[in-house]
Amino acid sequence: MSYKAVIIGGVAGGASAAARLRRLSEDSQIIIFERGPHVSFSNCSLPYHLSGMIENSKELVLLHPWNFSSQYNIDARIRHEVVSIDRGNKTVSVKNLETGELYEETYDKLILSPGAAPIVPPIEGIEKAKIFTVRSVPDIERLNHAITDLKPHNVTVIGGGFIGIETAENLREKGLSVTLIEAMPQILRQFDFDMVQILHKELFDNGIHLILGDKVTSFTENSVILESGQIVDSPIVILAIGVSPETLLAREAGLDLGKTGAIKVDQNFKTNDDSIYAIGDAVEVYNPLFSDFFRLSLAGPAQKQARHVADHIHGLRPVPGGFIGSSVIKVFGMNAASTGLSEGFIQAAGINRDYEVVKVIPRDKVGLMPDSAMLHFKLLFDRQTGKILGAQAIGAGNVDKRIDIIATLIKTGGTIVDLKDLELCYAPPFGTARDVVNFAGLVATNLQAGIFKQVHDYQIRELIKQDAFIVDIREKEIFTKGHLKTAINIPFSEIRQRLSEFPKDRPVYIQCRTGQDSYNVVLTLQHMGYDNVFNLCGGFMGISFFEYFMDETLPREPILTGYNFD
Amino acid sequence: MSYKAVIIGGVAGGASAAARLRRLSEDSQIIIFERGPHVSFSNCSLPYHLSGMIENSKELVLLHPWNFSSQYNIDARIRHEVVSIDRGNKTVSVKNLETGELYEETYDKLILSPGAAPIVPPIEGIEKAKIFTVRSVPDIERLNHAITDLKPHNVTVIGGGFIGIETAENLREKGLSVTLIEAMPQILRQFDFDMVQILHKELFDNGIHLILGDKVTSFTENSVILESGQIVDSPIVILAIGVSPETLLAREAGLDLGKTGAIKVDQNFKTNDDSIYAIGDAVEVYNPLFSDFFRLSLAGPAQKQARHVADHIHGLRPVPGGFIGSSVIKVFGMNAASTGLSEGFIQAAGINRDYEVVKVIPRDKVGLMPDSAMLHFKLLFDRQTGKILGAQAIGAGNVDKRIDIIATLIKTGGTIVDLKDLELCYAPPFGTARDVVNFAGLVATNLQAGIFKQVHDYQIRELIKQDAFIVDIREKEIFTKGHLKTAINIPFSEIRQRLSEFPKDRPVYIQCRTGQDSYNVVLTLQHMGYDNVFNLCGGFMGISFFEYFMDETLPREPILTGYNFD
Repeated sequence: MSYKAVIIGGVAGGASAAARLRRLSEDSQIIIFERGPHVSFSNCSLPYHLSGMIENSKELVLLHPWNFSSQYNIDARIRHEVVSIDRGNKTVSVKNLETGELYEETYDKLILSPGAAPIVPPIEGIEKAKIFTVRSVPDIERLNHAITDLKPHNVTVIGGGFIGIETAENLREKGLSVTLIEAMPQILRQFDFDMVQILHKELFDNGIHLILGDKVTSFTENSVILESGQIVDSPIVILAIGVSPETLLAREAGLDLGKTGAIKVDQNFKTNDDSIYAIGDAVEVYNPLFSDFFRLSLAGPAQKQARHVADHIHGLRPVPGGFIGSSVIKVFGMNAASTGLSEGFIQAAGINRDYEVVKVIPRDKVGLMPDSAMLHFKLLFDRQTGKILGAQAIGAGNVDKRIDIIATLIKTGGTIVDLKDLELCYAPPFGTARDVVNFAGLVATNLQAGIFKQVHDYQIRELIKQDAFIVDIREKEIFTKGHLKTAINIPFSEIRQRLSEFPKDRPVYIQCRTGQDSYNVVLTLQHMGYDNVFNLCGGFMGISFFEYFMDETLPREPILTGYNFD
Repeated sequence: MSYKAVIIGGVAGGASAAARLRRLSEDSQIIIFERGPHVSFSNCSLPYHLSGMIENSKELVLLHPWNFSSQYNIDARIRHEVVSIDRGNKTVSVKNLETGELYEETYDKLILSPGAAPIVPPIEGIEKAKIFTVRSVPDIERLNHAITDLKPHNVTVIGGGFIGIETAENLREKGLSVTLIEAMPQILRQFDFDMVQILHKELFDNGIHLILGDKVTSFTENSVILESGQIVDSPIVILAIGVSPETLLAREAGLDLGKTGAIKVDQNFKTNDDSIYAIGDAVEVYNPLFSDFFRLSLAGPAQKQARHVADHIHGLRPVPGGFIGSSVIKVFGMNAASTGLSEGFIQAAGINRDYEVVKVIPRDKVGLMPDSAMLHFKLLFDRQTGKILGAQAIGAGNVDKRIDIIATLIKTGGTIVDLKDLELCYAPPFGTARDVVNFAGLVATNLQAGIFKQVHDYQIRELIKQDAFIVDIREKEIFTKGHLKTAINIPFSEIRQRLSEFPKDRPVYIQCRTGQDSYNVVLTLQHMGYDNVFNLCGGFMGISFFEYFMDETLPREPILTGYNFD
């Protein structure tokens, strides 16, 4: 099979598609047009140049046009912009951005991989401020030079998504004062509000000036002005509020867009034109967990789509499967990963699903190991079928492992029963004999079977308002270090002797350190005839993490006498 | 449901079974008999006390009898040995090892969790040598004191299994000279001979005196004498050649043993007596990958079996599933994990399975990250069905993640197609956009489809003997740093211009750094009409690791002009 393939966009998806096409056919002609100065650069690594972790920005460029030509016989033309598509004649008009020359190129198959552009809204005064975005190697070089030149006393990052957080962290690691502004009440919407408090705390503890739930209303040359009236001095501003799919070419060529505003493609990433495919950040993809399309700006899926398209062009019948969205981010000393659906997403998107939530906070490895740490793990599953819907993991340790296991189970249609039974690697430096995910699976099957009832750590203020009867079962010397102001202390070891102290005429909430010992007590009480007993999922540690950052930043009365994060 | 449960053995399985029984029933009587001084200690952490990573041996004990009694109302009797079982009367005879008192205890349900004992063979002179084993807290305290007292110039560990390696490493970390002797040609039989060379190298590079394929024939007071005639001076000897299931009680009570010599149990871990269950290292378990029983001395499976038994006693109908064996070990700077079947096991056990092997050596995270490292990954799959059979991963980074993903796929019946499509977490500090396991899945599907042919890095001496035509496609300046003495250098970038140098009348073997670029060249050559082209799986790095340790320790001619481990 021999043909002429034209690919628009030479980063991630585009470069992968070209290489795969070459492996499938030696005599086809393959041309990549890339508007920017580089094909194939490490997009996701850009922020790490700011801290100096990646010292030389040249290293960010992975392959050059001459690599493509000599190794793959692929014609990669950088600084060449496709300005229009003539679907009838199957040609593209190309502008050489160096010379200004305009010319046409024919195609048999056209693959659109134009990516997405950082959103730069028309905020008042934006033309006066020194605004930067982080999307390309020149972007990051420009920002780095500006910081060196201006030596700003403060830098502001607007937007708490992946790029915003990573940029803020790397600037802070460089020793700068950094303000991070997010219009929503939380950063990183992949994580639920309760889980993300751990990351809010981590940013706060590492000296990031974190402003949530406040919008930028205008800029001056050296400051950012917020809806609240707050003025942030900042000679340099990085805009990272999101990206918008590059759809102009597609729209002008009469290709359909989907309801998310991205290019519409079928299960093989074909547009409404049989000769034109589209992949990567510019398209919307199908999510089998809620049977609808969404946008997913991630490198892994873009590469999979690229291969799928190349295979489909060659009649290899690749199997479509949709995407669930798995991601991970480092936030100073914390790692945070997620996959599938979150509670926040289910509610925001109005997804009709009878789901249940498990939250556990076990150690990520044997407690005797010097770097053993707590791992906060939240699991969502379908109450009716036990199918796993999503998970979030945050901790100092190996969170990506736990989330990859969940992503694998979701892919294969696994349930909470599979999860509890998974036979995973164990040695003290790596985990525990019953891994975090096994543990979550066990709790999930107990919940599904109706063995116990629970409330969540983030419901604690609501419980206190109701004057709930909360029993803290930690040992007395730990209790005194910090506890819920309204909790009664009856240690785990004294429960059976002090049964008379538990009322039978009102709900009883049992709280321990993380929700594990309290589960045992809940069962004991149930066996003793107490029907209205709830386990406080997440325990005192969950509450501590949930309350801390808000206590530090909101004018409100703390409900704890102290915190405990370990 | 109320009953009296007696559990023999209070470590791992026994303690887990007791706790689960209590959660299921408040008014049952639960007694644990433990011969040793501790219930519930961290067996797997013992070696880490030697290096001082775990400073205080008291920390190794996780729970005490009073914890069991006050928190769980479980009667845990340490230093109590069950000496016989009377199945007819449903009683056990118990000896209080402190007082010598002998008494009887009745049971409704009996759970055997006696574990396994270190094998101490009757080697000549063994009574003269200072022999230690590593199975309990007193064991490790005794060894630690002996080292402090004797200040030995050398310590010998016999046996290259998990305990042997971890003990050797921790003694070395303490600063001692350590000799490790293994009778087989390799350590850690979970890994194939080609993969384990990486670990041989790591031990060697870290100053362990590693002796393979040599047996201990006798001991003197201060030395170990080997079959080869070699004498190893060693005032202290640690025996870690394996464990033998504790079956004496079971045998004397007329309970059936399986063909592996361990206690025979059904899918619910019930022995041939309806009132007696057995779990942990003392039993043999079913492996669905080869439809037969095997022995598996691991903590995770023991805990799962414990829970299964407790649930089964309560009529909860837990779902049996067998065990595949997932494990991980740290060996100095390398981590090594495996799951399922290995080639070595398939061959040794004579398993009839049409399997295919993929070996890839990609980076474990983006190459720009400071701690990015190569990850050696070997995958076994069923050629006919694509079902995954097993995997091994070795590297400085997150190998447990990759193996846990594979273990999850095996559990859910996943195939190589699922593997290549898995949507895993990615950010530069954690992985690559196409993860190691995705990459292995891609190569596997290509192999299964017959797209290319391969030979393995460990077949290289055989190829050289056949005077094979091997082309090294790395760039010239890298080639000159170290290469196969008989390889021809034609760089990747010059392939299409130098096609005439490839013969058509004999097999051509393409070799690059790890087997990835060479795959592209193999396809190019095939497209050009060369039918007899093979990819050298593992590439020069695979060969370097495979040859290095043997070159250093065997009297033989190196086939490389130099190595390349990066």
